Amino acid sequence: MSANQSVQGIESPFSFHLPTNVQFGVGSASRLGEMLLSMGVRRVFLVTDQGVRQAGLLDEVIHSLEEKGLHFQIYADVEPDPSLETIQAGAAMFQQQSFDCMVAIGGGSPIDTAKGIRVLAANGGGIGQYAGVNRVPAASAIPLIAIPTTSGTGSEVTIFGVYSDWENHVKITVTSPHMAPSTALIDPALTLSLPAKMTAATGIDALAHGIETFFSLRSSPASDALAIHAMKMIAPHLRRAVRDGADMEARIGMSQGSVLAGMAFNNGFLGLAHAIGSALSGHCHVPHGVAIGLLLPHVVAFNTPVRPEKAELIADVLGSVQKETGTAAELVGQLVQDIGLPQRLQEVGVPEAKLVDIAKDSFKSGMMKWNPRLPTEQEVLELLQKAF
Amino acid sequence: MSANQSVQGIESPFSFHLPTNVQFGVGSASRLGEMLLSMGVRRVFLVTDQGVRQAGLLDEVIHSLEEKGLHFQIYADVEPDPSLETIQAGAAMFQQQSFDCMVAIGGGSPIDTAKGIRVLAANGGGIGQYAGVNRVPAASAIPLIAIPTTSGTGSEVTIFGVYSDWENHVKITVTSPHMAPSTALIDPALTLSLPAKMTAATGIDALAHGIETFFSLRSSPASDALAIHAMKMIAPHLRRAVRDGADMEARIGMSQGSVLAGMAFNNGFLGLAHAIGSALSGHCHVPHGVAIGLLLPHVVAFNTPVRPEKAELIADVLGSVQKETGTAAELVGQLVQDIGLPQRLQEVGVPEAKLVDIAKDSFKSGMMKWNPRLPTEQEVLELLQKAF
Repeated sequence: MSANQSVQGIESPFSFHLPTNVQFGVGSASRLGEMLLSMGVRRVFLVTDQGVRQAGLLDEVIHSLEEKGLHFQIYADVEPDPSLETIQAGAAMFQQQSFDCMVAIGGGSPIDTAKGIRVLAANGGGIGQYAGVNRVPAASAIPLIAIPTTSGTGSEVTIFGVYSDWENHVKITVTSPHMAPSTALIDPALTLSLPAKMTAATGIDALAHGIETFFSLRSSPASDALAIHAMKMIAPHLRRAVRDGADMEARIGMSQGSVLAGMAFNNGFLGLAHAIGSALSGHCHVPHGVAIGLLLPHVVAFNTPVRPEKAELIADVLGSVQKETGTAAELVGQLVQDIGLPQRLQEVGVPEAKLVDIAKDSFKSGMMKWNPRLPTEQEVLELLQKAF
Repeated sequence: MSANQSVQGIESPFSFHLPTNVQFGVGSASRLGEMLLSMGVRRVFLVTDQGVRQAGLLDEVIHSLEEKGLHFQIYADVEPDPSLETIQAGAAMFQQQSFDCMVAIGGGSPIDTAKGIRVLAANGGGIGQYAGVNRVPAASAIPLIAIPTTSGTGSEVTIFGVYSDWENHVKITVTSPHMAPSTALIDPALTLSLPAKMTAATGIDALAHGIETFFSLRSSPASDALAIHAMKMIAPHLRRAVRDGADMEARIGMSQGSVLAGMAFNNGFLGLAHAIGSALSGHCHVPHGVAIGLLLPHVVAFNTPVRPEKAELIADVLGSVQKETGTAAELVGQLVQDIGLPQRLQEVGVPEAKLVDIAKDSFKSGMMKWNPRLPTEQEVLELLQKAF
């Protein structure tokens, strides 16, 4: 039995759902046209960003659409941490013509953008008005196929979308089953060209999804099953994928681990690293994965006293890869170092004077309440000082 | 990494879906009325059987419907291994009035019956015409809530329904996402009164779902994650639940293990024990779980040479419970003995002369092709002789 059950009680109620169909296969993205044709699709609205376009990842997908005679229009004006305005502009473009399918290809930003556009197409208004939990009235009849080009966000299978409200200096999260893509089409070949730094940052985020949902107060036997297996897939493959981006086996393992972690945290939710990480990114523009890598070892150390059995299992999984021993927190820290991510907040230009505000704003995150050990503001500040 | 990947290749494509929302909690069945009311339901068609009724399991559910002023009608004429006619009669009764929800409460038979009635309500005709894979044209707008009273079939989360075509002496299987219940409402308290024999027979079936889907050629990282965790839940709790039916912790563990196994085999499918078991039940009227218990140790032994790493993991999981060592097949055999199930075909009145026909007909099962080691008819006969 897991520590979860000894601590939370085996009788804890839980729910589990997966609104998205997962289709996984090397080369599957090149068969998108075929798949859409069999669904009766004729006109495709394609959401992506300039990075994906410049990496040449769009070419194969476009070729497969053209080959099957499918009409398509591309919306590529998606920035990192997409704004409310980006969703609005995309929805306006979507409504100019008649489309019977949406396809998102990219990391979390294009996928979250497509999720938002689809909600607006079915419900009207602006995406900001649907912020919160279960506030999207109607499902869309338009299918959304999400094709990830990183192994990290899990956005291809989640019911969440995160948007930047620059006017009010906050990030909003829309949580609804109507946000979930209809299909996640996962092709590890699309991640082969991802640079080492991006592989490291997105990969540590995927590991954090597994670890944080495993620790979460909302964890369940179903999310534990997926989180444990996700960690087992990510642990042996993350260093390899960073060292040699062309290592297909490592890329496949990362893609598999990432989607399992996404399925897990879609139900078990996350915790302290994501809560503080959100405030850290907001205040100091630290990229999400880098922020998570900086915080995760300290968060694991903070949570270990209240979930010792879970921490032990994490240490077993991480330690078995390198035949190392150590605490879970030490092994996570070692991994962060090995994959070349920054280990100190000062390395990424965070001013010490900002730590108080970051600590305070981390409590604005909806993820804070699922952490198994609820910190005081002072404890978060101390954690940030350790990471400084 | 799992043995699966070293044998089948990490690059194997896979799909994973879960059309059913899972709601798990002790006492949740007594809040059914509240749940239906929040969904806007007014008129409920309730499918069950006499065994459930006589065990008093219906009372609490009915009370919760009455308390919320919900109208309901009960269809309880469901026999074990429900026939095509049972589905037809249920569909006729359903159409006599206007209902906005179906609820199935029971083991696999009432749940499969409700699945079939719901398909006929949306598509007309007889359930036999939808036999096969993805042959149900349309989804039903009527939600189906499945409430299991055993920890075994997994039917509450699967896309399958099995029906007896007595005229042609065959069982038919309807496989379609439109068969999946909308919600699985799982309340371990409903299993507290299940007799030891039924607990053993349904429990070994749940374990077999975990083991067979783990061995399956269609297994994937996602189904492996759930299958492994299901085995870890079932192994420590099955003996306890058989020994003391009132052991709530054991009942909870079995309910959790059973639904995880159902989520796994819904995607990874099953294998040789279910293929032979179907023929054995068909020829000699051996109850499904008893048939599975008789065959499972021999099937595990048969599969071990081609999936040694997976067999080792199964042995670890089963062995750690009793601090026993042994092969996976030996430990499964020991468990079957410990929970008081028959261990020899002759104990349940199977005539030796029938073995040839059983071996032959096991190849009619759609599950045979997923077994990792495809047997000859002679090899199945030899397996049956070992089990005789």
